[in-house]
Amino acid sequence: MKVVNETVVIDGIDKTILNFLMEDAKKSILEIARNIGITGAAVHQRLRKLEKAGLIEGSKLMINPRKLGYKTMAFVGVYLDKAVSNPQAVKQLSRIPEVIECHYTTGNWSIFIKILCRDNEHLMNVLNKDIQAIEGVSRTETFISLNQQIKRQIKI
Amino acid sequence: MKVVNETVVIDGIDKTILNFLMEDAKKSILEIARNIGITGAAVHQRLRKLEKAGLIEGSKLMINPRKLGYKTMAFVGVYLDKAVSNPQAVKQLSRIPEVIECHYTTGNWSIFIKILCRDNEHLMNVLNKDIQAIEGVSRTETFISLNQQIKRQIKI
Amino acid sequence: MKVVNETVVIDGIDKTILNFLMEDAKKSILEIARNIGITGAAVHQRLRKLEKAGLIEGSKLMINPRKLGYKTMAFVGVYLDKAVSNPQAVKQLSRIPEVIECHYTTGNWSIFIKILCRDNEHLMNVLNKDIQAIEGVSRTETFISLNQQIKRQIKI
Amino acid sequence: MKVVNETVVIDGIDKTILNFLMEDAKKSILEIARNIGITGAAVHQRLRKLEKAGLIEGSKLMINPRKLGYKTMAFVGVYLDKAVSNPQAVKQLSRIPEVIECHYTTGNWSIFIKILCRDNEHLMNVLNKDIQAIEGVSRTETFISLNQQIKRQIKI
Amino acid sequence: MKVVNETVVIDGIDKTILNFLMEDAKKSILEIARNIGITGAAVHQRLRKLEKAGLIEGSKLMINPRKLGYKTMAFVGVYLDKAVSNPQAVKQLSRIPEVIECHYTTGNWSIFIKILCRDNEHLMNVLNKDIQAIEGVSRTETFISLNQQIKRQIKI
Amino acid sequence: MKVVNETVVIDGIDKTILNFLMEDAKKSILEIARNIGITGAAVHQRLRKLEKAGLIEGSKLMINPRKLGYKTMAFVGVYLDKAVSNPQAVKQLSRIPEVIECHYTTGNWSIFIKILCRDNEHLMNVLNKDIQAIEGVSRTETFISLNQQIKRQIKI
Amino acid sequence: MKVVNETVVIDGIDKTILNFLMEDAKKSILEIARNIGITGAAVHQRLRKLEKAGLIEGSKLMINPRKLGYKTMAFVGVYLDKAVSNPQAVKQLSRIPEVIECHYTTGNWSIFIKILCRDNEHLMNVLNKDIQAIEGVSRTETFISLNQQIKRQIKI
Amino acid sequence: MKVVNETVVIDGIDKTILNFLMEDAKKSILEIARNIGITGAAVHQRLRKLEKAGLIEGSKLMINPRKLGYKTMAFVGVYLDKAVSNPQAVKQLSRIPEVIECHYTTGNWSIFIKILCRDNEHLMNVLNKDIQAIEGVSRTETFISLNQQIKRQIKI
Repeated sequence: MKVVNETVVIDGIDKTILNFLMEDAKKSILEIARNIGITGAAVHQRLRKLEKAGLIEGSKLMINPRKLGYKTMAFVGVYLDKAVSNPQAVKQLSRIPEVIECHYTTGNWSIFIKILCRDNEHLMNVLNKDIQAIEGVSRTETFISLNQQIKRQIKI
Repeated sequence: MKVVNETVVIDGIDKTILNFLMEDAKKSILEIARNIGITGAAVHQRLRKLEKAGLIEGSKLMINPRKLGYKTMAFVGVYLDKAVSNPQAVKQLSRIPEVIECHYTTGNWSIFIKILCRDNEHLMNVLNKDIQAIEGVSRTETFISLNQQIKRQIKI
Repeated sequence: MKVVNETVVIDGIDKTILNFLMEDAKKSILEIARNIGITGAAVHQRLRKLEKAGLIEGSKLMINPRKLGYKTMAFVGVYLDKAVSNPQAVKQLSRIPEVIECHYTTGNWSIFIKILCRDNEHLMNVLNKDIQAIEGVSRTETFISLNQQIKRQIKI
Repeated sequence: MKVVNETVVIDGIDKTILNFLMEDAKKSILEIARNIGITGAAVHQRLRKLEKAGLIEGSKLMINPRKLGYKTMAFVGVYLDKAVSNPQAVKQLSRIPEVIECHYTTGNWSIFIKILCRDNEHLMNVLNKDIQAIEGVSRTETFISLNQQIKRQIKI
Repeated sequence: MKVVNETVVIDGIDKTILNFLMEDAKKSILEIARNIGITGAAVHQRLRKLEKAGLIEGSKLMINPRKLGYKTMAFVGVYLDKAVSNPQAVKQLSRIPEVIECHYTTGNWSIFIKILCRDNEHLMNVLNKDIQAIEGVSRTETFISLNQQIKRQIKI
Repeated sequence: MKVVNETVVIDGIDKTILNFLMEDAKKSILEIARNIGITGAAVHQRLRKLEKAGLIEGSKLMINPRKLGYKTMAFVGVYLDKAVSNPQAVKQLSRIPEVIECHYTTGNWSIFIKILCRDNEHLMNVLNKDIQAIEGVSRTETFISLNQQIKRQIKI
Repeated sequence: MKVVNETVVIDGIDKTILNFLMEDAKKSILEIARNIGITGAAVHQRLRKLEKAGLIEGSKLMINPRKLGYKTMAFVGVYLDKAVSNPQAVKQLSRIPEVIECHYTTGNWSIFIKILCRDNEHLMNVLNKDIQAIEGVSRTETFISLNQQIKRQIKI
Repeated sequence: MKVVNETVVIDGIDKTILNFLMEDAKKSILEIARNIGITGAAVHQRLRKLEKAGLIEGSKLMINPRKLGYKTMAFVGVYLDKAVSNPQAVKQLSRIPEVIECHYTTGNWSIFIKILCRDNEHLMNVLNKDIQAIEGVSRTETFISLNQQIKRQIKI
């Protein structure tokens, strides 16, 4: 008479290991092990377990897009008309390389996206030529992030 | 009579190397080198150069927050009154672990944040006890991401 | 030269009886009678009169939907286009079991509904597949009840 | 390594029993039993089990408020300023008999309430004298339900 | 067990008389009487009855404000803060001669007024010096009537 | 090298006469004349002049619509789509007897109307059956006047 | 009994002269004269007359602000609270060199301004440090002009 | 590995010269030269250089449109539907002489324009007959500038 939701439960040692590697994926396992006071093998074993449980999704090289000239980040609320279903529109959006996030949200927008462009002129082109051209997009509301002040994964 | 903006220019080989590692930071350098048709040393040299130029910011272990029970992602537009400056409010927001992004945006909000909570009840507590308690926060507008359909770094 | 509006006028004894039973429909009539200081037969007679006048609509078993896993309550403002009349849209909405209230309201929405879903994902499916699929629904605005703090019938 | 969420699982027979009684709490148990093809004792046993699990919350006499002259139902979005906490405001709201629902919602309102009044003039008085008088209420947005077209518990 | 609402019921002859006089209060009673086919005395008697019942409120000379240079009509939604009660604000508004209507409305404004000014500059002064100066007025939203296309009393 | 705008200029005596009659069109001319200190003939002459100049538009019997059961006054912002021109829509609106004002306004609505109905249910029918049925009306936003606190012609 | 509004009436020859000089203030008077078929002296005389009438306000060197690095033009709706009068706020705004237009408008903003900044970061500083710092500014709504497609004086 | 953005860098002497001429394009070069303490030839040489760099765009006769009877300035947010591309709509708008600015902006409008009309009635005609008639314009939001308090080029 009970249902079960699959959530992975982790202890303090798991948290310490993850917090080190979420900060820097190249951090030495031995150093982490010494810091906690367990063996490197124990750290490896815990990481394998967390990976198997689906908690760890891999590691990624992080780049600074500003250094590639991507200086205008914007959020766009997209209104869809009935000509196209949400999954179809998302499929089209995923082909626009400047779209880096896409959400189905409560509130008044059908779709909410984050886009990263070189400058305001580039943003205008993405809005005007790429996003407005998607079948079913009736209207967009854009606001620009003038400065991103916090950017991090969840603290665990 | 000219000003200069510092943007790092990269060639196609740089792009290929970065794209591999942005997907998986643990990808073998030798394998990447072989794939491109250059030596591993050349790959290493290019990576050092890109790191020095500030383009590469490091690598991070990516976790799946849903597996830790974090299932409710929300966006919150924050209105500030004049009692507190924007930097002060951001400082307070950065102490709330559930706040994972914070932007200064155009449009009608003073601050726009992304938060990650366990469930809707947890979200209510973060809004009601943590965010509303910050001096200078006069009002918030919340919308929940019912589904994140795209999540990626900029394609280069 | 006068018109008459049919409103049932009740006295203090009627109110006491109703307040007891609106709290708990299984409350013993005799106990209520003793509490007021009249006979059980008098209580029965009054209840028959109120039922005949249409004031009492019956009694209902109340369940706790959270115990069945229904944890996300949301309000949805629905915009209709002209392709469909209001009664047609309401007919379609009444076929969606998650829709538990539907109102024709002043303000900017054509229809305002309350829905009860298992979780945010279920809500997304109801919005995206059931409500948006109704002919004539052009757009919806959703807000989630993170906590219901008062729920009662009118105090009489 | 798993967490458990307490949801009561019910079978088809439980559902049939509940659906009968959610429609009419005075429905004869024997009739329900005969309809399903089990004994009245089995129905009683199941009801006791569901009550113990917290799924059944009791039964209530339902009245028709229009017959008491309550003809204007309205929804009110309430904006709170910082002078008062949400729980304090809710406490004040619960003392106003016309307030029959109160929610903490996402979106732009702090509190969202449903009120039931005799007529538009009564509504104006409740807004102007009772709700606006609560410390911390800075502004309200009201919309009137001109007609309630669906009203039911969740279908199970 | 019934309540009574005081509404004056009128017949077709009353309606005809009223419609004539709502169009032109100086219309000859005899002419109206002849038109209907009753005596002038009967018309007078009916008018006395309707006046006594409070249905007729008097007659007014109508002027064309454009001929006095009043060419800008505007609607203003007024937001009040808590420093002042609604009746106090209305009292202040009634002292501004340009304010010709004032309503307590549902929706997002506290007070909704109609004002008649000579031109846009006069409107600015009324908004800026008279209305904004009222204690408790926190903000106004103005829209101008560029053309009034219908203006009449209710057809009876 | 000058253009001329036709505005009627009136003196203080004209104003006094008009203010008396705007309050009560049946006020005795002789009484007004005595009050000002001029002859009744002079009052008559001035009134003829003001009528000829188009300043006086006539006089009207004023009725109290509440006494006829018209108790719900509402403002409706109407959005038009391109299927119909503004004059066509206004023509249709003028056929609905409950519409007593119609304006072409700045702001976000195409047309802004005032309607007078018997009660909220009547309002719903006018909105749903009459106004929404007009070709080209895509959406309406309604707010109800819970109380009209000022109603007058411009003070001169 | 008439009022007079001072508007300068000009003929077709005036228009031609003005249109030439509104395009290029350095255009040769003789060339313009020849083009129209009148003497240079006549052109000079007309210009003196138009200047005296206040129609010509002077001539200005036009620069391209993009060439000075001013690439972000934005519109800002400013909400004022009651702490400061409109003229005081405008006085403060006029001290911010990036503010190039300031309007008192109908609608929901107290003040509406156009600002010209070097880039989005500069815009953020002007908003955050200069405009928000003005006493009485409670909130701002900013939107960026991604591209100005028409810019001209009125065609005459 | 660097990109270059073409911005013209100017010194304090350039700024002084430009500021004089931006105020009054007819200002004597010799007077400016004397004021700075350089030769007239040096001023001429600098102006030629700034013109060649594209910083100076020419000089224009400035007229006072109020003196031609243009007294109503308005801002109009235009919503486009998908029937027409943004450039097509802008082309149509540029044919309306009253449109003096047109911007592609972030926020909720597709196009944002400034228009200058003789009076409110003229504005209504431009909105109703010219702008609404453009294919693809689905809706407009207008607000009127009741007073322009600052109007200048960027201070350099």
